[in-house]
Amino acid sequence: MGDHFEIRAAMAEDVPAIVGMLADDPLGAQRESPDDLAPYLTALQRLDADPNQHLVVAEREGRVVGTLQLTIVPGLSRRGATRSIIEAVRVRADERGSGLGTRLIEWAIGESRRLGCQLVQLTSDRTRTDAHRFYDRLGFTASHMGFKLSL
Amino acid sequence: MGDHFEIRAAMAEDVPAIVGMLADDPLGAQRESPDDLAPYLTALQRLDADPNQHLVVAEREGRVVGTLQLTIVPGLSRRGATRSIIEAVRVRADERGSGLGTRLIEWAIGESRRLGCQLVQLTSDRTRTDAHRFYDRLGFTASHMGFKLSL
Repeated sequence: MGDHFEIRAAMAEDVPAIVGMLADDPLGAQRESPDDLAPYLTALQRLDADPNQHLVVAEREGRVVGTLQLTIVPGLSRRGATRSIIEAVRVRADERGSGLGTRLIEWAIGESRRLGCQLVQLTSDRTRTDAHRFYDRLGFTASHMGFKLSL
Repeated sequence: MGDHFEIRAAMAEDVPAIVGMLADDPLGAQRESPDDLAPYLTALQRLDADPNQHLVVAEREGRVVGTLQLTIVPGLSRRGATRSIIEAVRVRADERGSGLGTRLIEWAIGESRRLGCQLVQLTSDRTRTDAHRFYDRLGFTASHMGFKLSL
């Protein structure tokens, strides 16, 4: 598969590929609308306006093959520690097993360290057991329960 | 106990009381330093500089009795949904059972709705089973595993 991925900030031109990845998933298929990109483009503007948001894509040979969102969260807990939160990690179906997921998470960890974070956290749907093993291998501890409330 | 809580933005004068609550906890006791407030005051400046951060305290009769941090996170997932993340929920030991925890979370839910969020999420240490029942009663679903990595 090669390991020539570039990880860079997402741009408006990447939105169709990102939404395609979000929708190509048993959970995502129910909640995304790849035929109507307008709400996603508006959301990208909100992300771009927030210096603590880092939405990135992985590109290989000119094609967007992965994505991830990193949020930097200052706080008082743990002696004023800043933490980062990883959301919306996706790898194109035909790129799985190539090490790209690992590369994306390692990028997020490195960027978190560079930005002064003391903690990286993420949640993963309880049904995604493969993902849980993946995060465990990368050194994460499944120490918490993740609660959600739809408004 | 009365229900006359005011929920308002945290200020530098509130930091000793907030840190006291963070430290008065089996998990927090190991990782906070109430005798050295400098890192907390620096962190408060970082929070104040970020318009997507809302660190609040609950005050009753001039005393800080609770705290919570709400982070607003735009994103592409779920048709460009903005979500909020609740962190660092604490209620003073002598105010527990007064309904203040519920009031704080209801404030966070209302504020999230007002700010256009479609989803509220939080994580809770797996050992805090009382907290899990509390969030369940407030309508949250324990749908996720929460992973953390210390840097």
